[in-house]
Amino acid sequence: MSRFWSPIVARLTPYVPGEQPKISNLIKLNTNENPYPPSPRVLAALAEAGDEGLRLYPDPNAEALKSTIARYHGVRPEQVFVGNGSDEVLALAFMALLRHDAPLRFPDISYTFYPVYCGLYGIDHCIVPLNEAFEIDLADYAGTPGPVIFPNPNAPTGRLVSLAQIRALLQQLPDEVVVVDEAYVDFGGESAIALVADHPNLLVVQTLSKSRALAGLRVGFAIGHPELIEALERVKNSFNSYPLDRLAQAGAVASFEDEGYFQEMRAKVIASREWLIEDLTGLGFSVLPSAANFVFARHATRDAAGLAAALRERAIVVRHFRLPRIEQYLRISIGTDAQCDALVKALSEILG
Amino acid sequence: MSRFWSPIVARLTPYVPGEQPKISNLIKLNTNENPYPPSPRVLAALAEAGDEGLRLYPDPNAEALKSTIARYHGVRPEQVFVGNGSDEVLALAFMALLRHDAPLRFPDISYTFYPVYCGLYGIDHCIVPLNEAFEIDLADYAGTPGPVIFPNPNAPTGRLVSLAQIRALLQQLPDEVVVVDEAYVDFGGESAIALVADHPNLLVVQTLSKSRALAGLRVGFAIGHPELIEALERVKNSFNSYPLDRLAQAGAVASFEDEGYFQEMRAKVIASREWLIEDLTGLGFSVLPSAANFVFARHATRDAAGLAAALRERAIVVRHFRLPRIEQYLRISIGTDAQCDALVKALSEILG
Repeated sequence: MSRFWSPIVARLTPYVPGEQPKISNLIKLNTNENPYPPSPRVLAALAEAGDEGLRLYPDPNAEALKSTIARYHGVRPEQVFVGNGSDEVLALAFMALLRHDAPLRFPDISYTFYPVYCGLYGIDHCIVPLNEAFEIDLADYAGTPGPVIFPNPNAPTGRLVSLAQIRALLQQLPDEVVVVDEAYVDFGGESAIALVADHPNLLVVQTLSKSRALAGLRVGFAIGHPELIEALERVKNSFNSYPLDRLAQAGAVASFEDEGYFQEMRAKVIASREWLIEDLTGLGFSVLPSAANFVFARHATRDAAGLAAALRERAIVVRHFRLPRIEQYLRISIGTDAQCDALVKALSEILG
Repeated sequence: MSRFWSPIVARLTPYVPGEQPKISNLIKLNTNENPYPPSPRVLAALAEAGDEGLRLYPDPNAEALKSTIARYHGVRPEQVFVGNGSDEVLALAFMALLRHDAPLRFPDISYTFYPVYCGLYGIDHCIVPLNEAFEIDLADYAGTPGPVIFPNPNAPTGRLVSLAQIRALLQQLPDEVVVVDEAYVDFGGESAIALVADHPNLLVVQTLSKSRALAGLRVGFAIGHPELIEALERVKNSFNSYPLDRLAQAGAVASFEDEGYFQEMRAKVIASREWLIEDLTGLGFSVLPSAANFVFARHATRDAAGLAAALRERAIVVRHFRLPRIEQYLRISIGTDAQCDALVKALSEILG
């Protein structure tokens, strides 16, 4: 604490991202990165954009990227907002759309950045527990006023809510903004973008970090009614006119232009997930159904923190949250088949 | 206005960046970009970083970049904060350090993003007029409480305040944060980074967009006492853990490693500025002394808006602000010698 700090600073509890270890040869299954590289077309586009043109500012409105995303998802460009990773898109959504008199609601076990954003923007919020099966029950949100945000599939559980359930919530709360955070949707969910045309209160947020293997490029986007997008643009243009550099814009466009590669990579991750779940179950884990590129697993007898530490000794990093209700779970990102094999082998040894 | 907007959104007056025209073959002297390309070493570093590693998150703490900047400027890494362009660094500084009971002070003619940030964060502020010579007189800030921010050299005037004047202000306001925004300092100023060691209330903000020709890469930084940096980190980590992508971090490091190129390019811009000022003076302009990569010029008899329009017809874009006190001025970025020649030739024709 310093006398020079704005008063809010001392009250913040910043988000702590998953570790980015500097050791090489590590099997890194802790931050849900894609085990496969981005499309070769992305790398080609980056090589082309990394030229003398970098002396010039990027397009502040990222029009080429917005048009590409709009075309890809069958919406109009004015329904698309882009930002520096979905974390920035979410931050701006919290400020622009989720601060109202009635408290914002989100699940107790969910993306741990949500309460951090609330702290940053002074947003009153109300935590809604997952049910016993670790599912989001949207009926729990329908009866009372206030905006809603939840990841679908949820993180770190991987569990999915159906579009029918989301549609019902949107109808029950027509005057409240509902944000569906679809960071992992490409690994097994159906996007709520299909509901945007009928529901002006719906904002869908996605990222290129996971299914498009571009965590290092920092691009996320939101799709919704133009009025919601306008709110995001107004805040963005009061914060930073150029959040996406020239390379990020060019690489992101190229990623959407390589549909074949995208489908192939995501199918590979889904296939690996399915056999990993089988193998983990065979080792005595109960694994939640996952629609994401990670699994959330609890061993019948062994302590999760101990397992995570033992894996780390074998140069395998997974994520363990010391949080109520989930402290006996491990969140394991889906790696390549070789990485998943190594994980299963290491766990077999550890479990004796 | 929409019922879905957080109440603050309707009250915002977003910043409008200088136009990024899509016409090619334009002589673009409107957004103070560097007319020369970034260092070849930057392009090489980008080519190397644009690889499969992009599937992984960047270092959220940008340690390599912070160490490089610290070494370059003779400070410790914990005195360095980095962000997505100096606009983001400034935004976070407004939130983290400039919101206090006493109003923030800044000049009337200055970076027009400052009042926008105040609107975004609800910061009470007080505008202090430049003197008749369009200089910032820091004595005007010394007598009353409240934090202070100003660009040095100032934009769009180009005028410089001396380090002695800044030191005096820091001593007169030891309990107030003073932010010196040095976007243009490499073109003729002496950096206040030299004062950081003795003044825990000083934050110096710089950018790689101008003197390092990397506007398209979006990298800015701040240097100050570790307590000020901690405030920025706390807000950044409550907003977006990874504002700098892998390419931006790699390219920025390489820029600081090519000192010879940097010195050569900035000397060329300074030399062009000096003869452009002479030529403009010869055409009947009064030109403010400039320590930046632009000049601020007023013609004795001709209307500035008309001149800007006439230049535009000749495919030359300069910036004209329809703002009190400066509506008869043009802000002209320093181009290559050929571009400056073309500007002078066009103005000669227009002025008959």
